Amino acid sequence: MNFERLLSSATAIADNPWSGFPQYNFVGGHIDRATVPVDDLLAAVTAGMQKTGSDLASYGLLSGPQGYLPLREYLVSKLERYSGMTCSADEILLTSGSLQGMDLVNQALLDAGDTVIVEESNYGGALTRFRKLGVDMESIPVDNEGMQTDELEKTLSRMTAAGQSPKFIYTIPTVHNPTGSIMTLERRHALLEIAAKHDVAVVEDECYADLIWDGQRPASLYGLDTDTRVIHIGSFSKTISPALRVGYVVAPWRLMGHLLALKTDAGSGALEQLLLAEYCPKHFDDHVTSVNQALKRKLDTLTGALDKEFGSTVEYWYPPGGIFLWVKFDSTVDTQKLASVAGPEGVSINPGHEWSLQSDSKSFIRLCFAYPDEDTIEAGVARLAEICHNTFGVPAYGANRKR
Amino acid sequence: MNFERLLSSATAIADNPWSGFPQYNFVGGHIDRATVPVDDLLAAVTAGMQKTGSDLASYGLLSGPQGYLPLREYLVSKLERYSGMTCSADEILLTSGSLQGMDLVNQALLDAGDTVIVEESNYGGALTRFRKLGVDMESIPVDNEGMQTDELEKTLSRMTAAGQSPKFIYTIPTVHNPTGSIMTLERRHALLEIAAKHDVAVVEDECYADLIWDGQRPASLYGLDTDTRVIHIGSFSKTISPALRVGYVVAPWRLMGHLLALKTDAGSGALEQLLLAEYCPKHFDDHVTSVNQALKRKLDTLTGALDKEFGSTVEYWYPPGGIFLWVKFDSTVDTQKLASVAGPEGVSINPGHEWSLQSDSKSFIRLCFAYPDEDTIEAGVARLAEICHNTFGVPAYGANRKR
Repeated sequence: MNFERLLSSATAIADNPWSGFPQYNFVGGHIDRATVPVDDLLAAVTAGMQKTGSDLASYGLLSGPQGYLPLREYLVSKLERYSGMTCSADEILLTSGSLQGMDLVNQALLDAGDTVIVEESNYGGALTRFRKLGVDMESIPVDNEGMQTDELEKTLSRMTAAGQSPKFIYTIPTVHNPTGSIMTLERRHALLEIAAKHDVAVVEDECYADLIWDGQRPASLYGLDTDTRVIHIGSFSKTISPALRVGYVVAPWRLMGHLLALKTDAGSGALEQLLLAEYCPKHFDDHVTSVNQALKRKLDTLTGALDKEFGSTVEYWYPPGGIFLWVKFDSTVDTQKLASVAGPEGVSINPGHEWSLQSDSKSFIRLCFAYPDEDTIEAGVARLAEICHNTFGVPAYGANRKR
Repeated sequence: MNFERLLSSATAIADNPWSGFPQYNFVGGHIDRATVPVDDLLAAVTAGMQKTGSDLASYGLLSGPQGYLPLREYLVSKLERYSGMTCSADEILLTSGSLQGMDLVNQALLDAGDTVIVEESNYGGALTRFRKLGVDMESIPVDNEGMQTDELEKTLSRMTAAGQSPKFIYTIPTVHNPTGSIMTLERRHALLEIAAKHDVAVVEDECYADLIWDGQRPASLYGLDTDTRVIHIGSFSKTISPALRVGYVVAPWRLMGHLLALKTDAGSGALEQLLLAEYCPKHFDDHVTSVNQALKRKLDTLTGALDKEFGSTVEYWYPPGGIFLWVKFDSTVDTQKLASVAGPEGVSINPGHEWSLQSDSKSFIRLCFAYPDEDTIEAGVARLAEICHNTFGVPAYGANRKR
């Protein structure tokens, strides 16, 4: 029969069935294969399964719908140490990655026609989600110190004067996607003050926040907040494994009750949760240190390759952490076209227009550097430079050779 | 701040934070603790992690968004052997339990104001979902041979004559929830014929279909269908572990592409998928046989306890499989009230009005018997009889004693 005539208004369609990664894969939140601690993870899941045993017979491992209690208890201490947060296990909901967390928060707070405040360059999946929901976005520029809070104040004052009230400010304050910037403590305080002045909620997405080269970061907005204004979203995807799909939302119970009612999948996978509950208390801190060393080496390889292959035809700011680099081309290069030409040639990149609302977004690309090994990074950047040269005449010369 | 004023139209609110299972837990799809094959599951996840190793660095274990390919390949053969289905791995989407599968299918096909056809007594979570979506339900009675297809034909003819076209027929043909009935082969053919005549899609939920005492069952509707009309939903929750959260949807690619676009959680948990891919080919068949023996023993314990404690004041049909019993009280008992009195006394039951659209739904309760051990079943039924007697004067006498 013809399913097309039955489709709801919610549908889009995915491409053809998945056919494998491209040769040079600079997209997606995959991590460094070499840093996955397979043996320790196996030991952890073994210990966890021996401990919980036949509790697997029940939904939620006898911990209820918010997720495995020992992992929530670990998070209480981890979030205090890393993010300056005070919360209880009852204020944490374990989710299928931070993405399910984001979907639940959006479902709880947003109707079509609502407005959210977003950083101008942004996680593409966030922009897609808001668009799908029919939600309007007001965008605030980001620089190397995070969201520009003076611009935030201007925007909110204008909206307040016009009788408009955004539902929340969505921000990635710590290792912003895609720029990698870390919002300064000063701006964090400013943001919270402005949010209080205009009585706007804040949704803070810290899914990359553990990936900082020098390990130094300001307290999270949730940690600095004194008014229960901030909803905090985090993840283990970028530090341990994205395949595990374990993220979390931290929110006060009076919102948590609504998130739970919307989480209709009867819990997220148990094995990942008990694995993390065993692994993290023993290994997380050391693991993150070594992950960051490996990532910084790959970033150096990437920036070295870009310098060599593209020279002064691209610009980037060297980020203090993360798994991506936000790269600006001169205006002769249309990165939407570059991505569409490079894709079929085996080089996948995120074109800027999918990751930014700024007017010159088509001059940018996002390059994810965690997954490909260093040789692949170098060869992929060389291939991208060749494709860019053939398509736009830029770069005219490689570092050591005429094209 | 006050989150209440920010809530979307989608919100409901959950009760207080979870505080543990009641003493006598006759609700929920939990399974028999004694049958969870913890050692074999641990061996399977170990083998799986050793095999996939650092593939955990990527979303979806290098199998793409539809889930771990070896598990989908196992399902292709399992569904052929158990359910008479012919499908390819590209037509299978692994989901976070069958519930996520149901949510995705509903999202893809339903808008508020649409109509679905449902069995009159039904899975409470399905009724809740359709209500939340603002979808109208036309209900068809169920008897010991499944949905009454003559009534289905009458309803669809009436709707067709009125220019109405339901989006799909939602059915639990094999071990119907809550009655436990198995739709006969004859009625399956009739249902497909009627669906074809009125060009209505069919959503078949087979999440309990492996739990049949004699192991005999008709081919699934998907298997009998010749017109790509049926979407098939299944699960490993009831046979291996609900905590794992692994279910699946089988659908043609032209619908699958839409389901994938709606599955915004970037895949379901990897460990559960690789565990099942290792465990099932070796153990599933034998495991299900022994699970069914254990469940039938518990059902016998439950029916024995009901006979003893309630005598002729309750009626039930002894089901050929499943984890629940649908019990009818005489009309002096209001089961909504019974459930609300029994809950605080430590006896959790599903009152019929949550699991049925039939006019006498308040005479029924659903009792799940898989999780409590046999002593608990007996003690719980005795406690329930005492509560029922104290509240309604029914049963007047226990088997051997005056109350």
